[in-house]
Amino acid sequence: MRLSRYFVPLLKETPSEAQIVSHRLMLRAGLIRQEAAGIYAWLPLGFRVLRKIEQIVREEMNRAGAVEILMPTLQQSDLWRESGRYDAYGPEMLRITDRHERELVYGPTNEEMVTEIFRAYVKSYKSLPLNLYHIQWKFRDEVRPRFGVMRGREFLMKDAYSFDLDQATARRSYNRMYVAYLRAFDRMGLVTIPMRADTGPIGGDLSHEFHVLADTGESQVYLDRNLIDMPVPPETIDFGGDLDPIVQQRSALYAATSDVHDQARFEAEVPEERRMSTRGIEVGQVFYFGAKYSTPMKATVTGPDGKDVPVEMGSYGIGVSRLVAAIIEASHDDAGIIWPEPVAPFDLGLVNLKAGDAKTDAACGDLYASLTRAGKDVLYDDTAERPGAKFAGMDLIGLPWQVVVGPRGLEKGLVEVKNRKTGAKEELSADEVVNRFAK
Amino acid sequence: MRLSRYFVPLLKETPSEAQIVSHRLMLRAGLIRQEAAGIYAWLPLGFRVLRKIEQIVREEMNRAGAVEILMPTLQQSDLWRESGRYDAYGPEMLRITDRHERELVYGPTNEEMVTEIFRAYVKSYKSLPLNLYHIQWKFRDEVRPRFGVMRGREFLMKDAYSFDLDQATARRSYNRMYVAYLRAFDRMGLVTIPMRADTGPIGGDLSHEFHVLADTGESQVYLDRNLIDMPVPPETIDFGGDLDPIVQQRSALYAATSDVHDQARFEAEVPEERRMSTRGIEVGQVFYFGAKYSTPMKATVTGPDGKDVPVEMGSYGIGVSRLVAAIIEASHDDAGIIWPEPVAPFDLGLVNLKAGDAKTDAACGDLYASLTRAGKDVLYDDTAERPGAKFAGMDLIGLPWQVVVGPRGLEKGLVEVKNRKTGAKEELSADEVVNRFAK
Repeated sequence: MRLSRYFVPLLKETPSEAQIVSHRLMLRAGLIRQEAAGIYAWLPLGFRVLRKIEQIVREEMNRAGAVEILMPTLQQSDLWRESGRYDAYGPEMLRITDRHERELVYGPTNEEMVTEIFRAYVKSYKSLPLNLYHIQWKFRDEVRPRFGVMRGREFLMKDAYSFDLDQATARRSYNRMYVAYLRAFDRMGLVTIPMRADTGPIGGDLSHEFHVLADTGESQVYLDRNLIDMPVPPETIDFGGDLDPIVQQRSALYAATSDVHDQARFEAEVPEERRMSTRGIEVGQVFYFGAKYSTPMKATVTGPDGKDVPVEMGSYGIGVSRLVAAIIEASHDDAGIIWPEPVAPFDLGLVNLKAGDAKTDAACGDLYASLTRAGKDVLYDDTAERPGAKFAGMDLIGLPWQVVVGPRGLEKGLVEVKNRKTGAKEELSADEVVNRFAK
Repeated sequence: MRLSRYFVPLLKETPSEAQIVSHRLMLRAGLIRQEAAGIYAWLPLGFRVLRKIEQIVREEMNRAGAVEILMPTLQQSDLWRESGRYDAYGPEMLRITDRHERELVYGPTNEEMVTEIFRAYVKSYKSLPLNLYHIQWKFRDEVRPRFGVMRGREFLMKDAYSFDLDQATARRSYNRMYVAYLRAFDRMGLVTIPMRADTGPIGGDLSHEFHVLADTGESQVYLDRNLIDMPVPPETIDFGGDLDPIVQQRSALYAATSDVHDQARFEAEVPEERRMSTRGIEVGQVFYFGAKYSTPMKATVTGPDGKDVPVEMGSYGIGVSRLVAAIIEASHDDAGIIWPEPVAPFDLGLVNLKAGDAKTDAACGDLYASLTRAGKDVLYDDTAERPGAKFAGMDLIGLPWQVVVGPRGLEKGLVEVKNRKTGAKEELSADEVVNRFAK
């Protein structure tokens, strides 16, 4: 993409309303624009990151056997009366009256609707296990929306719902999501720790929160350092097999947010040199809640013994839009964002130091064409900006690699390649650059 | 995908509420489920078609130089007061009061919001032309939602917005969208005719509606048959070049919906043998409306002469969710849907006539693996249903090809390949099947 034909509105000033670093950087790098309190438009660079995160989540959900659907944003409020959550949810649920005076709500989550879909079609245990998920915009009317997309009102969530005949199979469904989450967050370049959690308004018996470790995170977390070094299950993991050892191995080690932290237990269970206290950002949560919704909503299946039982359910959320901010919190420096390669909006930036100079333009044009042909997404800064502004802009938007082309280097047949994360620079020929990235 | 692990709830009965064929078939084939009046959940097969259509639209928009963003579903109502459309839009606009008594609307379209984004960042003609688009859920509170997703309330739309310095360049932006639309609809297997149109509530000077021809369409349309045979611009078309001849060539030939049809002109301009009167379904519309929004909303750019002028705008919509229904209206038979290959939820269906039989299972398993390796999306019916139900189900969901594997054919080393559209059947060896589809 040529920057001159693209839309990356960088801000020179740090917006005063932004209190946390990810919010500041998302505004300054032109990723988002606020359209109302807690409601954001995603500008081109931000949109690309959002889609990359969404795609990683989708691939890992599909790998784990979940089936993608798409439920609407608006729901009939009657569904929430059936489950008993209409009153319980409180003012965070946005209630809407349509032209015929029927009440709708903007879905803050979809347990009710997916249970309605399930009960309409599935009657027998033979159709189980089933896990339906979607990636859709939700709305929660936070009293004080803040921190940008970290705590917005309209936000993109992946929510999955598992249906099983009994507790043992429901536990297996839970484990599949737990492992899929480990894989998805790892693929985004994050260190993420599952922590035992309260079940809160979703209800249920078993829950884990997944926290990204980041110095600037929202919550204090306490954990056994060994959790960090535990290998993430590989792509080839068998989701049909027994995943309980993977879950148990992690659950055996101490990890808790300040909400549930027990200092005495922490000190008793974890040797001092492995005790770690740092900050975390919640990016996902998994719940097993059995028949909490299926009983009031009469979602039953006929078991092998011919008897109807309420289906056993769990739900599994990932904050897709929140992850964009969480990744920035975990990966930035004073100059700007440092995108992990799998979620970067472009693979590399190509900087033309003297746009308008025939030789430099030609060299950049050739590199752009070759790298694009090699399957790389290149953001080519072909504008007339001065070099200093171009360097600062590239550092701010944080693509993993920068390829800098100027007349002086070209005289020696060289261009400069910079790694955004380490700052390391190398001088290479154009061919060497193409070979490096075409790998 | 193995059908036994998927979720394709077929209905045996034709739902009584469905008045048009696409609505009936979408319900019967398990593509959608109604969640409220005019509000639908997309089940797995329907979701896949929706995504394929969305991706074709995206690719053609990108090819034409438009830049993808994502605006939120909810908007501040103040924006609509600025443009003067708050009152004009009427009860079709869903108005919402949040917990702080601030008024939001569920966006029925985004002229106001995108103009707000533009004016916040773009100040100079040097940043033009610019075309920003998004593919997002919209809401229009129709008095009588009906015909399934053809006239739903919550619907997925691609809407693009062009910004130019003057009328001449705005016209070029308009032409790029016109050509992108011809290409996008053609890629979906549709015969689509642009027709001069009233500009309606969007306002403006120039507009075309794009109508899919389908016997069961909603509107009567009149056209010169030569329009149908006009070649669609190829993938290599230069969007930087002069596209006006393509637009003019079509505009020179008569094409009108009954709203604006003039029988006398029709007969005067079109030789009798080329006069065609049939039914159409509107799937897209393009508008040029100049400064209608930029003037009241003060979206100006500084021109080369240093003077500020209101930016010239156009908007361009495609009904993504509506297209799913329009394609079915244009392509079905008594047995069910006939998906054009580019939008089919799977490339082919693999039918195991005797699931549980070791030989048949093995042959199907091998075919499934080989076809999947060859990059084909295969829906493998590995269930214990009887053959008649499997055949009827495959015809109903309408994948372009069916590969049928049974013990009798396997004795001769043959499987049957059926083309859903023509009904033509061939007996081939498994290797021949793989070679056929691996092309």
